[in-house]
Amino acid sequence: MAIAAVSITPIGTGTTSVSTYVAAAERALREEPGLRVELTAMFTLLEGDLDTIFRAIRRAQEAVVEAGAQRVSTVIKIDDRRDRHATMEQKVTRVESLLKEG
Amino acid sequence: MAIAAVSITPIGTGTTSVSTYVAAAERALREEPGLRVELTAMFTLLEGDLDTIFRAIRRAQEAVVEAGAQRVSTVIKIDDRRDRHATMEQKVTRVESLLKEG
Amino acid sequence: MAIAAVSITPIGTGTTSVSTYVAAAERALREEPGLRVELTAMFTLLEGDLDTIFRAIRRAQEAVVEAGAQRVSTVIKIDDRRDRHATMEQKVTRVESLLKEG
Amino acid sequence: MAIAAVSITPIGTGTTSVSTYVAAAERALREEPGLRVELTAMFTLLEGDLDTIFRAIRRAQEAVVEAGAQRVSTVIKIDDRRDRHATMEQKVTRVESLLKEG
Repeated sequence: MAIAAVSITPIGTGTTSVSTYVAAAERALREEPGLRVELTAMFTLLEGDLDTIFRAIRRAQEAVVEAGAQRVSTVIKIDDRRDRHATMEQKVTRVESLLKEG
Repeated sequence: MAIAAVSITPIGTGTTSVSTYVAAAERALREEPGLRVELTAMFTLLEGDLDTIFRAIRRAQEAVVEAGAQRVSTVIKIDDRRDRHATMEQKVTRVESLLKEG
Repeated sequence: MAIAAVSITPIGTGTTSVSTYVAAAERALREEPGLRVELTAMFTLLEGDLDTIFRAIRRAQEAVVEAGAQRVSTVIKIDDRRDRHATMEQKVTRVESLLKEG
Repeated sequence: MAIAAVSITPIGTGTTSVSTYVAAAERALREEPGLRVELTAMFTLLEGDLDTIFRAIRRAQEAVVEAGAQRVSTVIKIDDRRDRHATMEQKVTRVESLLKEG
């Protein structure tokens, strides 16, 4: 299990609004079985098996092309931890509790 | 006003757990006046004036060094929109509403 | 055909030097048939079919785990252009010629 | 001294070609005193003092706006090493020599 962040941006669409393309990518990501998907203002967060993550991103990128983009810029960051699994909530909660301790 | 995502990771700390370093960075970011800060499982999201964002990241990186890191890897993604301002919530809400429309 | 940049970093290795892990990743990338691989100081650049790129990165990440990393942070940026293919050299040459024109 | 990679992309420009914007960013980066700048197919690599790097990126982003972009997406990766300085060439050479050793 790994956690990833992905952002897929169309280039040269003629409008600064990219939300329809982001929605197309998001739909493809949410259709992937076994993947947790969480939309944020800058990246979509993914939690699942590493192969599932790569496959879902590959499909999401294709979905943005199918939505009309002629050029797509994709940024991915993956946190692949093999010693133990930490969920997205556990990662955030751990830091929040350290901040409370001061 | 811009929106950014930042991740600051210590390299070579001898342990796979990096939460104390992330907390140090987070504290520095939250101390920056005029900056909205939102922690997620992969990136910390920032909303504010572009110069404020850069200054806060610069300080957060120093905080991770002060917490003991000898080498720091920082990843930043900035969405700098000059035609109109969209908050973090507005960006997410716009995509969510498109997803509901189908 | 697409162009990508990938950086695979081990977390928690106990030393700030990560070159043996980078070399392990590099070897895996260079073994992938049909992929052009170019090492730079921050990212390894890849040029090839999009599926080949994803497969090579997946293998390179595994190679870093096999080299001993318990946690791996991977950053990927992909330039996926469907209107026409531009090689890595063509992208650089185009910008350099614009800079010469002033 | 640190090493960084930066990519500044205009969003919504109406054409998939972004080289004039990349050239505008490149010019701003090269004007920064005390900064080494190296253009690659995916990122521009920077070597210099950390504050100089941040200032140069800030200016390059403004240059892309001045070139006509209404929305700019910037991706930055920084390798900030405090134990010792390694130049861009040294980082690459070290990995290349490990690859030759097999």
